Amino acid sequence: MVSASNTENHAGPIRLGMVGGGQGAFIGAVHRYAARLDGHFQLVAGALSSDPDRARASGAELGLSPDRCYGSFEEMARAEADRPDGIEAVSVVTPNNMHYPVAKAFLEAGIHVICDKPLTSTLDDARKLVDLVEKSGKLFVLTHNYTGYPMIRQARSMVEAGELGNIRVVQVEYPQDWLAEPIEREGQKQAAWRTDPERSGAGGCIGDIGTHAWNLATFVTMLKTDRLSADLDTFVPGRLLDDNAHVMLRFRPEGGAPAAKGMLWASQVSPGNENGLKLRVYGTKGGIEWAQEDPNRLWFTPLGQPKRLITRGGTGANEAAARVTRIPGGHPEGYLEGFANIYSEAAAAIRAMRAENGKVPGELLFPTVHDGLDGMRFIEACVNSSKANGKWTELPA
Amino acid sequence: MVSASNTENHAGPIRLGMVGGGQGAFIGAVHRYAARLDGHFQLVAGALSSDPDRARASGAELGLSPDRCYGSFEEMARAEADRPDGIEAVSVVTPNNMHYPVAKAFLEAGIHVICDKPLTSTLDDARKLVDLVEKSGKLFVLTHNYTGYPMIRQARSMVEAGELGNIRVVQVEYPQDWLAEPIEREGQKQAAWRTDPERSGAGGCIGDIGTHAWNLATFVTMLKTDRLSADLDTFVPGRLLDDNAHVMLRFRPEGGAPAAKGMLWASQVSPGNENGLKLRVYGTKGGIEWAQEDPNRLWFTPLGQPKRLITRGGTGANEAAARVTRIPGGHPEGYLEGFANIYSEAAAAIRAMRAENGKVPGELLFPTVHDGLDGMRFIEACVNSSKANGKWTELPA
Amino acid sequence: MVSASNTENHAGPIRLGMVGGGQGAFIGAVHRYAARLDGHFQLVAGALSSDPDRARASGAELGLSPDRCYGSFEEMARAEADRPDGIEAVSVVTPNNMHYPVAKAFLEAGIHVICDKPLTSTLDDARKLVDLVEKSGKLFVLTHNYTGYPMIRQARSMVEAGELGNIRVVQVEYPQDWLAEPIEREGQKQAAWRTDPERSGAGGCIGDIGTHAWNLATFVTMLKTDRLSADLDTFVPGRLLDDNAHVMLRFRPEGGAPAAKGMLWASQVSPGNENGLKLRVYGTKGGIEWAQEDPNRLWFTPLGQPKRLITRGGTGANEAAARVTRIPGGHPEGYLEGFANIYSEAAAAIRAMRAENGKVPGELLFPTVHDGLDGMRFIEACVNSSKANGKWTELPA
Amino acid sequence: MVSASNTENHAGPIRLGMVGGGQGAFIGAVHRYAARLDGHFQLVAGALSSDPDRARASGAELGLSPDRCYGSFEEMARAEADRPDGIEAVSVVTPNNMHYPVAKAFLEAGIHVICDKPLTSTLDDARKLVDLVEKSGKLFVLTHNYTGYPMIRQARSMVEAGELGNIRVVQVEYPQDWLAEPIEREGQKQAAWRTDPERSGAGGCIGDIGTHAWNLATFVTMLKTDRLSADLDTFVPGRLLDDNAHVMLRFRPEGGAPAAKGMLWASQVSPGNENGLKLRVYGTKGGIEWAQEDPNRLWFTPLGQPKRLITRGGTGANEAAARVTRIPGGHPEGYLEGFANIYSEAAAAIRAMRAENGKVPGELLFPTVHDGLDGMRFIEACVNSSKANGKWTELPA
Repeated sequence: MVSASNTENHAGPIRLGMVGGGQGAFIGAVHRYAARLDGHFQLVAGALSSDPDRARASGAELGLSPDRCYGSFEEMARAEADRPDGIEAVSVVTPNNMHYPVAKAFLEAGIHVICDKPLTSTLDDARKLVDLVEKSGKLFVLTHNYTGYPMIRQARSMVEAGELGNIRVVQVEYPQDWLAEPIEREGQKQAAWRTDPERSGAGGCIGDIGTHAWNLATFVTMLKTDRLSADLDTFVPGRLLDDNAHVMLRFRPEGGAPAAKGMLWASQVSPGNENGLKLRVYGTKGGIEWAQEDPNRLWFTPLGQPKRLITRGGTGANEAAARVTRIPGGHPEGYLEGFANIYSEAAAAIRAMRAENGKVPGELLFPTVHDGLDGMRFIEACVNSSKANGKWTELPA
Repeated sequence: MVSASNTENHAGPIRLGMVGGGQGAFIGAVHRYAARLDGHFQLVAGALSSDPDRARASGAELGLSPDRCYGSFEEMARAEADRPDGIEAVSVVTPNNMHYPVAKAFLEAGIHVICDKPLTSTLDDARKLVDLVEKSGKLFVLTHNYTGYPMIRQARSMVEAGELGNIRVVQVEYPQDWLAEPIEREGQKQAAWRTDPERSGAGGCIGDIGTHAWNLATFVTMLKTDRLSADLDTFVPGRLLDDNAHVMLRFRPEGGAPAAKGMLWASQVSPGNENGLKLRVYGTKGGIEWAQEDPNRLWFTPLGQPKRLITRGGTGANEAAARVTRIPGGHPEGYLEGFANIYSEAAAAIRAMRAENGKVPGELLFPTVHDGLDGMRFIEACVNSSKANGKWTELPA
Repeated sequence: MVSASNTENHAGPIRLGMVGGGQGAFIGAVHRYAARLDGHFQLVAGALSSDPDRARASGAELGLSPDRCYGSFEEMARAEADRPDGIEAVSVVTPNNMHYPVAKAFLEAGIHVICDKPLTSTLDDARKLVDLVEKSGKLFVLTHNYTGYPMIRQARSMVEAGELGNIRVVQVEYPQDWLAEPIEREGQKQAAWRTDPERSGAGGCIGDIGTHAWNLATFVTMLKTDRLSADLDTFVPGRLLDDNAHVMLRFRPEGGAPAAKGMLWASQVSPGNENGLKLRVYGTKGGIEWAQEDPNRLWFTPLGQPKRLITRGGTGANEAAARVTRIPGGHPEGYLEGFANIYSEAAAAIRAMRAENGKVPGELLFPTVHDGLDGMRFIEACVNSSKANGKWTELPA
Repeated sequence: MVSASNTENHAGPIRLGMVGGGQGAFIGAVHRYAARLDGHFQLVAGALSSDPDRARASGAELGLSPDRCYGSFEEMARAEADRPDGIEAVSVVTPNNMHYPVAKAFLEAGIHVICDKPLTSTLDDARKLVDLVEKSGKLFVLTHNYTGYPMIRQARSMVEAGELGNIRVVQVEYPQDWLAEPIEREGQKQAAWRTDPERSGAGGCIGDIGTHAWNLATFVTMLKTDRLSADLDTFVPGRLLDDNAHVMLRFRPEGGAPAAKGMLWASQVSPGNENGLKLRVYGTKGGIEWAQEDPNRLWFTPLGQPKRLITRGGTGANEAAARVTRIPGGHPEGYLEGFANIYSEAAAAIRAMRAENGKVPGELLFPTVHDGLDGMRFIEACVNSSKANGKWTELPA
């Protein structure tokens, strides 16, 4: 059941650095858990905070050697590139606006990049980053981590195998409630940068979690979005970015079938929702339903038959799920395991690229800089459509 | 716990007639169960089919006296109006296009009308029917039956009491799968008329179940719809009406709060969904969630507190729910009980109207001809918006 | 989908009387809803309370003719037997200790009996009642109402068809919480008689709901209980009967397979449980799970395959379920509908018995006086085993 | 939210060895994931298989230095004790019968032991091991991993704080289905040793998972078991150990309250159950419910109030849960995270013990050799009671 990517292969762990993720951060710790779980990475360097003192203190806490606790990412990129035992990859876990300059520095230093989502804070940065990645020949992995869940891999492969027939309807939603009140004004660090256009970009809720939802829907269905109509709101008085997003989606028709349609709802102001990412896909032959808070279960209904419960590691699970499954059915894997699957795919890719003319094996599945650019185009289209009163809007080129 | 409306009050049951609902029909039987459950009505006459032979056979099966099995509704209205023991109320359970002429005939004969939804097949008929009802002084009850569920009554009263604060987001959906294939061409009677514009009207799925969803959302939230943007689809080739509807809603701002927003999804082509009406309402102070297939439970989350399970007849249930509750918590009531609550409210209204200058008591809660007109305006706006490529459209006057 | 037993056949409703069930009672109203729902019965007479004034007032409320509101059941039995339009059947909804004398009076008057469970308050009464029923040639239906749920019928027929293979394990439970405190001392009428050995018999919780659980388990599995080991407790200080029951069950081996084993838990002192009857049955080929509070769903796992959701009226539902199903899947039927199925089976039986030498058709399925006797034997065995410190005890002959 | 025990404190990871857990094993990999997740341990040595070739190959796969891949645990204990950089702790993940000799060798070599459950294969070994641990002054941690789940920690602390009042009823169950057929005869390695009395001990299902269930119930309730009555079965023909266990429990009365009662069901032959450990505890003031397959949720019902959903990392979670929580609510943690909590508590204990006269801090919570001895006493009592036809049996001294 354990896949190649999860094999505890230790031709020595990959040396990893991190930018951002110091004391008080949330997603930095998640990346570290994910990097450690399968044993493919070892964190050896960091520029963990833009505040040099905090950077050093955070590094010490993580057991980094003092000489590899850097005060700035530029210094880190230079120094690590020069070391014979320098890092091979860096995790970028800063606010969005720093993704571009940080990734640029490391790519130019010949270091692979694993970067949090969304790709950047502006579409322009995103386009430049695509060019940079392509020129660099380095790996760029975007942590749309929900694509790492085994049951999501299964769902995608079922769509691919035609088990749902032609897709007609895609319903995706991602409600939360943690921003129902203006906690960004009360010093909550996570809230502060996410609601700040300077650091977050033009999208608030739609950028932070709406992109996750859209990425997941398109990952599973492999449909291309033709146009969308968005209605973004800012319910909390004084907030600068949207905190609720309603989006209607039209996908491109494929193979003569009518175009599939979709709805996307993202919200950070809906009490009773913690992290309610949920995807439902309906086709001519069947439907599937999956919820992130109960990630080990995939519901599949072949049209006209009883609904079936497919479980991670259990009966009905297919090869695509098994590749990223660690333990048997009934022993729940969670968010960190799904996140770790992205890291372990990245590790397999990095190892493959070590060889002369090494290529990333086709079976590895992880979000790339192109997915990141698509996400930025999605955000831009949503913001533009909403400003144009919900006008049906194509994703910008 | 048993409410006034459900009291098994038998100052003699109310004499009831039925138009439509003969052999092979679905909703006619539902109306009869609903009428019988609390003992307030006795079915004594019918024009149960437009086919006179079937009408008579159906009547015999139901134990109707042969002289009260009519071959046409016109005849029935006349004859019953003339009998000293004639019916006091009639249930109209025909396809939509017949609601108007049938209701007209009975109202003009001085007989109360209980009518299935949507109100009519055209907006014009709906407007005329409103006038007719007002002139007649008779009761007109529209069976938007989902408003009869105790936990829906509770939800509405919680909104009314401000327990959710200002409403921000309303998510309502109503997916089914029974029309995923063109069964209307295989002689399925229910499918045939529902997909026929002549009998159903301009809305297919949006008229049949979308109106239920919208009615439920507005019943609970008491919000007025300002504009909507709709994307209706017909996925099954050759079908004449929509079978999937995506709608974004903007409600009218109230009390200085920003306008609430909503999404409505109705589908009859989504495999794995039987009758998946579900409502979620989120406000500044809390959120509620309810699903028709699990109707005895209402989930309530006061912002910042654990989610709570309120059960019909159980702890947390309020007076509004108790009024329409028959049995204790844990003993599930279902669809027929909710439907019967509408009938029992109607019975209480009819009894009150028997008195000289009798008025319908304020605590009775049932959908009226005005709600029906609103539903027709909603359908019209959806169809028009969709034709105009999702243009934000006001409900017609 | 609508079964013979539910057909709204009105060769005239059956004339029904009721003993018990006056103001303040719970189960009497349930019986009346059940009798009315399918239209097979009309309540025309009653001795609704042992207090003559309350009996008359209760009868008036139910629309009974004053001359058929009796002050005692003996008088009612005599008078109704003498009337040409006298009742054909009587519902007995008194405390347990009155079941025997009331049933006796009506059986001897030639009137069919529909009686609440458990059968009597003593095993001796139960044995005498079996004799009486057999001598009388009259119908005796015991309202172990949970056997009326469509998904329970389905479960039984699946066991019968061998879809589970040889049964190995039976887990049944019935937790409630309404007696967690000594409300019988605060005038709660339902609690008062149920905790009174005089009126209830030797079993408290085990008699009130434990018998339901055991009846359900044996109805579905058709297994015979060989021996049981019981540990009954009275947790609420001062209470006279058990309020929690733990029972291990050994069934008789069948067809060479090892004997199946079971566990039964009944409790009235477990906070958070309303009416949590739940049955799970596991065999060599598959397992099923069903919960009374979610009665429209039956979970079936064929060994080695994904769990499947079978829904009442939906995909996977079989003939045995369809016989007692009124409305389509997704439109939940509940407790009253399941209860009404017992009444409608009774109606079909009574109609069949009207004919000369009329016999009860084999397809009708309802608990009889023999099931009631078995239930009393079960209670006796539990009480005796518990007194003997959990000694494995056979059901008394 | 991140607890002391999970802090990614790296005063250098603890050097860890492993005995057992080579290719084809299940639980060995789980221990390695658990050891790695929080970064407190580094695996540096192993005797991964009793087959020396497999031991070496397995070690190479895990990146162990060849000179630290041992062919026998005795050799490993000696060699590692002699190295200045020798392991500080060893994970014992062999079949049960090897726990004792392996643990003995390492304890005597001055090395801490983390050992899988049950403690040993015989009660005699268990008693000897207790003595050995006490003499050694070394840490002995037993991986009853389910006690590491945050919501279980919360449940225990709620019981401790009296939020449930006096406990009356404890229902615990642990059904699986993977041994429903005799796969031990088809070369399934996990099944082979678990159904072999030589390697497993006197208990099959009761020892493998029944002990988990009992340990969890007593961990949460802190009740002492007074006596039990067990009915063990072997349903699969030819199997040598029990594969289904029914147990009734009587706890010792505390503080004048009546003794609590319990039921325990463990099964490996119940189709449709993957790893269905579930605990329900009911007291005078409230009830709680928790299921291992949905471990982030704890249901709490204060008597007479609506049921509440407490979520790991979410509203309602208390300090005891927060101590072992890594990520926010709605981001599910799973089995490996719970398991890792035991390892991280062990790490904190080991670090504390490094100091002169170092003591294990009181707030650390992990199962000890004494819990392991209790588990063996429980198995022995179950086996003896079952052999004595369910006689109420005390746990042996």
